[in-house]
Amino acid sequence: MSPTRKAQDLAEAVGREMYRRDRTSQYLGIALEEIRPGYARMRLRVGEEMVNGHGMCHGGFIFTLADSAFAYSCNSHNHNAVASGCTIEFLAPAHVGDVLTAVAEERALAGRSGIYDIDIANQDGKRIAVFRGKSHRIQGETVKTQGE
Amino acid sequence: MSPTRKAQDLAEAVGREMYRRDRTSQYLGIALEEIRPGYARMRLRVGEEMVNGHGMCHGGFIFTLADSAFAYSCNSHNHNAVASGCTIEFLAPAHVGDVLTAVAEERALAGRSGIYDIDIANQDGKRIAVFRGKSHRIQGETVKTQGE
Amino acid sequence: MSPTRKAQDLAEAVGREMYRRDRTSQYLGIALEEIRPGYARMRLRVGEEMVNGHGMCHGGFIFTLADSAFAYSCNSHNHNAVASGCTIEFLAPAHVGDVLTAVAEERALAGRSGIYDIDIANQDGKRIAVFRGKSHRIQGETVKTQGE
Amino acid sequence: MSPTRKAQDLAEAVGREMYRRDRTSQYLGIALEEIRPGYARMRLRVGEEMVNGHGMCHGGFIFTLADSAFAYSCNSHNHNAVASGCTIEFLAPAHVGDVLTAVAEERALAGRSGIYDIDIANQDGKRIAVFRGKSHRIQGETVKTQGE
Repeated sequence: MSPTRKAQDLAEAVGREMYRRDRTSQYLGIALEEIRPGYARMRLRVGEEMVNGHGMCHGGFIFTLADSAFAYSCNSHNHNAVASGCTIEFLAPAHVGDVLTAVAEERALAGRSGIYDIDIANQDGKRIAVFRGKSHRIQGETVKTQGE
Repeated sequence: MSPTRKAQDLAEAVGREMYRRDRTSQYLGIALEEIRPGYARMRLRVGEEMVNGHGMCHGGFIFTLADSAFAYSCNSHNHNAVASGCTIEFLAPAHVGDVLTAVAEERALAGRSGIYDIDIANQDGKRIAVFRGKSHRIQGETVKTQGE
Repeated sequence: MSPTRKAQDLAEAVGREMYRRDRTSQYLGIALEEIRPGYARMRLRVGEEMVNGHGMCHGGFIFTLADSAFAYSCNSHNHNAVASGCTIEFLAPAHVGDVLTAVAEERALAGRSGIYDIDIANQDGKRIAVFRGKSHRIQGETVKTQGE
Repeated sequence: MSPTRKAQDLAEAVGREMYRRDRTSQYLGIALEEIRPGYARMRLRVGEEMVNGHGMCHGGFIFTLADSAFAYSCNSHNHNAVASGCTIEFLAPAHVGDVLTAVAEERALAGRSGIYDIDIANQDGKRIAVFRGKSHRIQGETVKTQGE
């Protein structure tokens, strides 16, 4: 099996195992659509219970979707990693019924830290927010691997 | 009525009206404990459905709590304001059953922009995260006022 | 003249005019190597006077280089714009004699706001820092244009 | 000698030694006005060479002043620390001749990480920018101590 194929299989195994334990995504209806080494794409439909005091989608759910895509992408190499800090810029509001997609891509790795950029767009391709996450690698791995 | 008392009454009226419309806080069980001009304190109990793929409280809910306190504090003057961007730094994990409190304070106002600092701590007073939000004032107000 | 060529000529004219007034770049020896609509590339050689209390290049100069590339890229359309906020993540130290290059690219435009990503690398292509800037468009333009 | 006094003496010794090596502050004329454990106050006069392409003080120098105050405050305990990331929000422009003061205060310590808030104001007390820095402790100390 090629190294590339092996890395892809590992990323998919990590994605399945993380999602199995990931109560938040199941609770909010966040779907993992694709995972690759250093990459994840997730989707959320904005429900009526996700509205804030101004009648728009609460920024917390947009953040949660982006933060989830960040988590899957930075764990895709099967080295456990957690968020140390994040920034989000809100560009346009989201509304009930919108289907939001977050695409996470690895931008830099340095020692045990990583930088990931996440774009969030709605069903029309309009960009809703941009997110940047900084990860920190910790002990452990998500799936058991043999002879490695 | 003193100007101070008037501003406090207005902040409380804004808080009640925002909370009435705020489906997110009702859905997640976020309580508004105190609101003053430029200040808000909110509380969240971490439920079992708030766990991420590593078995800890998903950062999205910590963010949502902080972002909510930010929203109430920056709307407390009854001028509608929305978040333009936020940063969060995670300092310690939160777990199922923890009771988190977010305290939001106004740090600066400049033109239509405001800077708010939010601290999030658990039931033992241990700081879990620090959040900084930048607000942008838009048209409109939350509660109707007379003769102003 | 094609619209693309016209936009490129305008960007270059803005670059020349900004640089003429830009005392900081002249003072520190920051060179504007390339400017295109929504893009700028700048270069700085780390001098002995740019050292901090730990003997490494002061983060302030790395920021200044990135912030300059940000400024040229977000003004390249000839609508005056200023920075409203920036984040920088430091990935590796820079040292005296290093030649740093900052590449700025437009990531999103929404109303009068823009998001720009700037990468800073050394002469070996090693990434030193990543920077994200948020711009705010103000009145005025850098170069006079006719019939527009 | 009281522990408090000892910590203060140590902070001052660190400040003197850092400043001795700190070519940047000497070059730009940044003065260290006060240092205490977890605190530093520094001052910069905006010179004519600090002007950007819009005729205002280049944000890079405002950042450099803030970043310097951050560095002195996070090293004041005599454990070497470096910046891992920073955010700055610009609230008002600064001009040639303005005297800017940056005050850095420790907001949180967690493991080897620290969060510092820095406020930058001009000679009239008007706030120019707010800065938040995240530090990371590394090996080594600035001044030698005996029997510790």
